[in-house]
Amino acid sequence: MKNERPTILVVNDDGIDAPGIQTLLHAMKELGNVVVVAPDGPQSGMGHAITISRPLRLDRVHIYPDVEMYKTSGTPADCVKLAVNKVLQGKKPDLCVSGINHGLNHSINVIYSGTMSAAVEGAIESIPSIGFSYDDFTYDADFRSCVPYVKAIAKQVLEHGLPQGTLLNVNFPKTNKIKGLKICRQANAKYAEEFDERLDPHKRNYYWLTGVFQHNDKGEDTDVWALENGYASLVPVQFDLTAHHAIPYLNTWNINVES
Amino acid sequence: MKNERPTILVVNDDGIDAPGIQTLLHAMKELGNVVVVAPDGPQSGMGHAITISRPLRLDRVHIYPDVEMYKTSGTPADCVKLAVNKVLQGKKPDLCVSGINHGLNHSINVIYSGTMSAAVEGAIESIPSIGFSYDDFTYDADFRSCVPYVKAIAKQVLEHGLPQGTLLNVNFPKTNKIKGLKICRQANAKYAEEFDERLDPHKRNYYWLTGVFQHNDKGEDTDVWALENGYASLVPVQFDLTAHHAIPYLNTWNINVES
Repeated sequence: MKNERPTILVVNDDGIDAPGIQTLLHAMKELGNVVVVAPDGPQSGMGHAITISRPLRLDRVHIYPDVEMYKTSGTPADCVKLAVNKVLQGKKPDLCVSGINHGLNHSINVIYSGTMSAAVEGAIESIPSIGFSYDDFTYDADFRSCVPYVKAIAKQVLEHGLPQGTLLNVNFPKTNKIKGLKICRQANAKYAEEFDERLDPHKRNYYWLTGVFQHNDKGEDTDVWALENGYASLVPVQFDLTAHHAIPYLNTWNINVES
Repeated sequence: MKNERPTILVVNDDGIDAPGIQTLLHAMKELGNVVVVAPDGPQSGMGHAITISRPLRLDRVHIYPDVEMYKTSGTPADCVKLAVNKVLQGKKPDLCVSGINHGLNHSINVIYSGTMSAAVEGAIESIPSIGFSYDDFTYDADFRSCVPYVKAIAKQVLEHGLPQGTLLNVNFPKTNKIKGLKICRQANAKYAEEFDERLDPHKRNYYWLTGVFQHNDKGEDTDVWALENGYASLVPVQFDLTAHHAIPYLNTWNINVES
């Protein structure tokens, strides 16, 4: 069994035609048998949305003769559910990789990211899972500098697995020469939202969500620090959101409910 | 300043006309000045989606003369961003409450839940935030048993705040007589997905996502245990997803990248 080529599920949130997922699937073909399930259009900012009030489409697409590829009308998290349940008929892949995202998913972006939601969904399914993102949101992003790291990290995870309940969030800086890989924590940063208010042709208001990134976390152990200093960042991520440290304090509360 | 009535932001994911948000806003009117920003239709399962590729609508609605209410085309997370930035003009509310959701958001549902994504967004904005959910997903759900707990917990949070980076996920069992409130951790549980496959009138396949809840976590300190035993559950939730305990192990990795 150990000598069989591993099955690698490749997903993303930018859609099946994105150069980022093409780069990722070609890198993974060197390590195993690749199955791709990706959205039929862009799904950025979808967070961990799942599709429960609409039916889903799932259609085979033929781009490369040696890669089984499907597109779906669903979200990135749906892609993983459909892959495991319908495409692989319940057989768990050995690895789930998501991306390479056109644009970074460091710090608080892990919460909003469709790329990371697919990787989280893989981890919930007990599949070793990694999200990859690159600091260039354009369609023409050049992912070549990321590829050696993508392969090395995937190889490591295939060999050694990941701690229970943990997945990886890997981000790459935009540089010809990545300095190395840093194991990091999620930086404490957020967006200051701004809404660009406009008038439609019928004189009704509408708003575009924009925002300015606010980063006041001075730590040198954060993903933002690593990326700003030319390193790739790797943050271990968990989907147990319990703030365990807050439980003893909350147990001191005296909630009186008259009934 | 301390004697002013607090400003309480009320949001949800079931939409502005849901009985759950009506119950919540009436409970909050006893504690402060209420502002409501809610989706103009159901947004369940939206996870932490935000709207970046479509413009957003935000319209005043007049239901109660003494409550400022708005509906939006956006997601639950968008509601909080719009409330803080446009409705309150940057003034932070003293409390953000989300729900009461028609349906439970215990265990892994915290990841998929629109109700909880709105509360998480509030916490990211440094607003003390609470999500409330009830074990009845029907429109006609009777929330009366929840109300005393909702008010007591909201009052406590208004008085004492919450630890930095922490929000609350509160779930109520369906019973006439809630036994009490338990401070819990998120149960380690998931869904076994099943896709209901059908043929459309044009003979093309489509799928409905369904799933069976799988709960193998025997701990008596979990939200699922509390709810199954007639208690309301309160889980402190964090949005730093770093699996800090995994960092020392990952630092033992030797990622060799030939370049």
